[in-house]
Amino acid sequence: MRAYKVVFYPHNQTVTVVDGDNLLRTAMEAGVHINASCGGGGVCGKCRVLIESGVVEGGITEKLSAQDLAQGYRLACQSTIRSDLQVRIPVESEVDVSVLNRLATPRKTARIRQVNFEELKEKGLFIPPVEKRYLELPPPSENDRLPDVTRLISFLKAKYNEHRLVVRLPVIRKIPDVLRSNDFKVTATLARPVHEGRKTHIINIEPGDTTNRNFAIAVDIGTTTVYGQLIDLNSGEVLAQHGEFNGQISYGEDVLSRIVFAEKSGGLEKLHQVVIETINKIIRRLVKQTDVVLDEISSITLAGNTTMTQLFLKINPRYIRRAPYVPVSTLFPPIQAATLGLELSDHVTALVYPAVSSYVGGDIVSGVMGAGLYLADEVTLYLDIGTNAEIVIGNKDWFACAACSAGPAFEGGGIKFGMRAAKGGIEDFSIDPVSLEPMIMTIGNVPPKGICGSGLITLVAVLFEMGIIDNRGKFDRDLKTKRIREADGVYEYVLVWAAETQIDRDITLSEVDIDNFIRAKGAIFSGCQTLLEEVGLRIEDIDQIVLAGGFGSYVDLERAMTIGLLPEIDADRITYIGNGSLMGCRMSSLTNRLRKDVVEVTRKMTNFELSETPSYMDHYVAALFLPHTDMSLFPKLKDRLKLRSRHKS
Amino acid sequence: MRAYKVVFYPHNQTVTVVDGDNLLRTAMEAGVHINASCGGGGVCGKCRVLIESGVVEGGITEKLSAQDLAQGYRLACQSTIRSDLQVRIPVESEVDVSVLNRLATPRKTARIRQVNFEELKEKGLFIPPVEKRYLELPPPSENDRLPDVTRLISFLKAKYNEHRLVVRLPVIRKIPDVLRSNDFKVTATLARPVHEGRKTHIINIEPGDTTNRNFAIAVDIGTTTVYGQLIDLNSGEVLAQHGEFNGQISYGEDVLSRIVFAEKSGGLEKLHQVVIETINKIIRRLVKQTDVVLDEISSITLAGNTTMTQLFLKINPRYIRRAPYVPVSTLFPPIQAATLGLELSDHVTALVYPAVSSYVGGDIVSGVMGAGLYLADEVTLYLDIGTNAEIVIGNKDWFACAACSAGPAFEGGGIKFGMRAAKGGIEDFSIDPVSLEPMIMTIGNVPPKGICGSGLITLVAVLFEMGIIDNRGKFDRDLKTKRIREADGVYEYVLVWAAETQIDRDITLSEVDIDNFIRAKGAIFSGCQTLLEEVGLRIEDIDQIVLAGGFGSYVDLERAMTIGLLPEIDADRITYIGNGSLMGCRMSSLTNRLRKDVVEVTRKMTNFELSETPSYMDHYVAALFLPHTDMSLFPKLKDRLKLRSRHKS
Repeated sequence: MRAYKVVFYPHNQTVTVVDGDNLLRTAMEAGVHINASCGGGGVCGKCRVLIESGVVEGGITEKLSAQDLAQGYRLACQSTIRSDLQVRIPVESEVDVSVLNRLATPRKTARIRQVNFEELKEKGLFIPPVEKRYLELPPPSENDRLPDVTRLISFLKAKYNEHRLVVRLPVIRKIPDVLRSNDFKVTATLARPVHEGRKTHIINIEPGDTTNRNFAIAVDIGTTTVYGQLIDLNSGEVLAQHGEFNGQISYGEDVLSRIVFAEKSGGLEKLHQVVIETINKIIRRLVKQTDVVLDEISSITLAGNTTMTQLFLKINPRYIRRAPYVPVSTLFPPIQAATLGLELSDHVTALVYPAVSSYVGGDIVSGVMGAGLYLADEVTLYLDIGTNAEIVIGNKDWFACAACSAGPAFEGGGIKFGMRAAKGGIEDFSIDPVSLEPMIMTIGNVPPKGICGSGLITLVAVLFEMGIIDNRGKFDRDLKTKRIREADGVYEYVLVWAAETQIDRDITLSEVDIDNFIRAKGAIFSGCQTLLEEVGLRIEDIDQIVLAGGFGSYVDLERAMTIGLLPEIDADRITYIGNGSLMGCRMSSLTNRLRKDVVEVTRKMTNFELSETPSYMDHYVAALFLPHTDMSLFPKLKDRLKLRSRHKS
Repeated sequence: MRAYKVVFYPHNQTVTVVDGDNLLRTAMEAGVHINASCGGGGVCGKCRVLIESGVVEGGITEKLSAQDLAQGYRLACQSTIRSDLQVRIPVESEVDVSVLNRLATPRKTARIRQVNFEELKEKGLFIPPVEKRYLELPPPSENDRLPDVTRLISFLKAKYNEHRLVVRLPVIRKIPDVLRSNDFKVTATLARPVHEGRKTHIINIEPGDTTNRNFAIAVDIGTTTVYGQLIDLNSGEVLAQHGEFNGQISYGEDVLSRIVFAEKSGGLEKLHQVVIETINKIIRRLVKQTDVVLDEISSITLAGNTTMTQLFLKINPRYIRRAPYVPVSTLFPPIQAATLGLELSDHVTALVYPAVSSYVGGDIVSGVMGAGLYLADEVTLYLDIGTNAEIVIGNKDWFACAACSAGPAFEGGGIKFGMRAAKGGIEDFSIDPVSLEPMIMTIGNVPPKGICGSGLITLVAVLFEMGIIDNRGKFDRDLKTKRIREADGVYEYVLVWAAETQIDRDITLSEVDIDNFIRAKGAIFSGCQTLLEEVGLRIEDIDQIVLAGGFGSYVDLERAMTIGLLPEIDADRITYIGNGSLMGCRMSSLTNRLRKDVVEVTRKMTNFELSETPSYMDHYVAALFLPHTDMSLFPKLKDRLKLRSRHKS
């Protein structure tokens, strides 16, 4: 793709973009404010910019007069960049350009880290758990009366140096006819031992050469959504991915209500059956999207939180929600997938990720494994944020972990106009320091419906850094703008006027919302602090941060530090792995190394119950400020705020 | 029991008996001939004997006159010994008493060898495959949040030094409630690894202390009969034994007709289902006979010939009867018993004995293991005689084996009045050298129905040694007795006149019968010879013989050598183990040592296909004589026959 240079005036801010980028989004990510209320939907007509040189596509609407167009004005939200550009932003009031520049913090999201199959191979980590071997056997004769199974095993030994082979009964049943159906030319599917020196199981036999048809399924069993991937075991490639709502949602939104339902008569069986149906639906969809047939799938790996895992395995989770909150087990044995009701061939074994405790489950262990943290020298903070935030700190030698109940703020809960990340969700925000007019980007560039988690972080961060709210999250009552108002005794900021929304109501952010948000981020930050303290470390000892969960991809890292959600650390040392649970499952499909190491890693993971750690409450209370009562934890922010107040005064 | 001394006159033969022994049987076993046609049923009235001193109970019937009774005559077959006795046999013709004595060979059956549990323990061979462990666990608390499974495992480690424990999913599902149902006092059932260093599986958990309730089932799957034993794993004792006809009999009498049926559509499934039903019937009976309940059974071990094993496991046996006659496998993996349809708890694993070849199956391997041959320094000949005779020769270092088709003569087939060992079967025989009148004992002391295998051996041996038949099995045409007659051009000896039988026909033994019998014994003897030759040994290199099979217990060893069925060897070096297959299964239930060693032993067992060994036919033809063309193989018999002919001449 061609790269262009875009210069914004009067800020004199230059950024590099690629052909086809949206101009408003480019400005947002460059930290250049353009008034824009409708999230990029082309409705409000406020994001007028003057194209001084270069070419954009689109941006011409009835919101602009013929004269505007003739002069070179375009709507930024509707403009696609097609060359180098010089763009002038009409600054409605006189503002010192230097201020603009100083406040401009370019949006910085975490580097995305992905499984690299070639790297796995290079590192010697590629020990396929399931492999196919093609053999051309001599038929038996008077001088060679090897039994069929012995024949197969002997030639696997001779040709492929395979040892300690055992054959399962269903395969023994198939062998005589399969051997004779294709002139003793067959493909054997081998399931490798996790531990060297253990047995290799011959789990299937097929006529002819099918070695290029070997696939695996990886599944993340989320409380809300279940995701699956279909993986080609020869190339390591993900051939298809599909997500479905967890069918258990009808029986309770969250983990606790599911446990309550499971305790009812028949409840456990129902929840088990429903999640199996969800997974079967996903498997069917994955297969349909590709040319793979069910019988070619050789393995399935799954991970979920402790309750999801127990429900999947039909283990009653009742003691998870009863003091002293013990899960039934950490490790789960491999199990024949078909016996669980999964619509896979009889030879497929389901591997289920082990858990650490009732609230740090297999999904977290899977992420830790998938991200390779357990091999790292660096002290890493692994953070998976949802309703519960799970925190893991450690390196190859040790791990400490904890779950903290962040509440649903990051998923839109407890925020009046909060919503999950979906089309129409406000995901980015900037504000004109003088007019206090907003610049808003929505997911999908459509008129706004609400505020999603990443948008909320930016929103609070910007309002705080611009001094519009104070460190307790309270609005500056002296500011003169109709966007800040009191409603039912609560101050709020109007992000979008009703006319420009999809919901015909003003979309606002109130002090109550901000308060809930601060509690959520405070829970997480203090969780990290407490956990660090328990292992004798401090925030500055963290070498890197890994973010996981659907939440992390769009989070502006600097903003997340500004509000005190993430510890202040060089943004280059933060990576995002997306669905860590799914990533670990995929990795485990590709290499037995993980299957072997995971037992040891799980053992190394020391669980801390934050609610019973005395210092947690102190840390929590101290974290109920923006960014924190102890500003020495955020030295860079402290400097920026000093600069701002110098400018103001 | 009190022991008495019985002296028979005019033979002057003294034997020791116990209180309650039958007088006719005592005479028979002492080699003292008493005319007796009706097998001990009291019908023919021929076994009159004079009690000269001492007391018998019974023996008084209408066949004896008042005068006879007054003199002290009794029917031997109806007399129970109650004191020391002096008994005179009325010898109807003048016979030199010294001849009688010389011909009298006391019946000598093989010593019975049994599993000795204490000996197993002493030898360090007792490594129980399934054990129960009782634990009193501390309940979880705020300071002790071990997951349930981890808690169980940790305390098994701490209290019993158990290691490498894994828990199966169905047990995981039970653990939380079982722990809490009895104050965390539980019994865990552990299945030990066959190989040291492998994993121990926790296969069950029960509330309270149930360590004294741990049982196993051993099953021999015979083509005709299936036998089961219920074993107490704490004491090693057999609590109950039960046999049932194999339900598959309705679908074919022998192995080949079963294979033919299995090849029909649905045939394999039917035969599988039917034998499972037979085994379930046995299990139900075993449990009913004792106070054991099904859930207390922890393991099941089974053995059968190769076809029976494959049908039991639902593996199509079609290639067993097709050249080049390869079985599907030698080893079979342990399998969850319930998945086969066996009515046992889910945690029970079925162990199935490995086979060597299509016609040397798991029943033979089981016998070799059970009899401990694989630990012996001595070269042992192991012989399991049925329709097929399986022969194993070897010691701890090597084994050679072969199956030879003996035909059904030993089970009554191909013999006009042949029958299986059952009530009314003639099982013992003696003949008056002058009158040629017989002395007959039947199983159950009832009027005769036919001749069973052990009876047949004695019959032919006695007729041969008395010179009534020659070494080709032909009757001496010059003998004057109505018992030897020609019918339809074939000579025969009338054992029992119709009136004294249960079947209202004369029971005879013809030259055709004898010919079939000689072929059968010739096949076995030449099989042994060929096998010995293939491994570079000779008959005199055999250190001991082990007989197995329902057939061996009543066989008169000296008679079996006389006819050339068994090689001539000191009778003390022959032992009988009964159902060797069942014995091996029982042993495997008691110690993992066998489960481990059996794989190696099976590998050591070299199979020979006799029909394709060129020398077999020569050996066979040479063996179609009584005892053999090469009399140097039977030096003791040679001496006896010399003595006889000297006496005659």
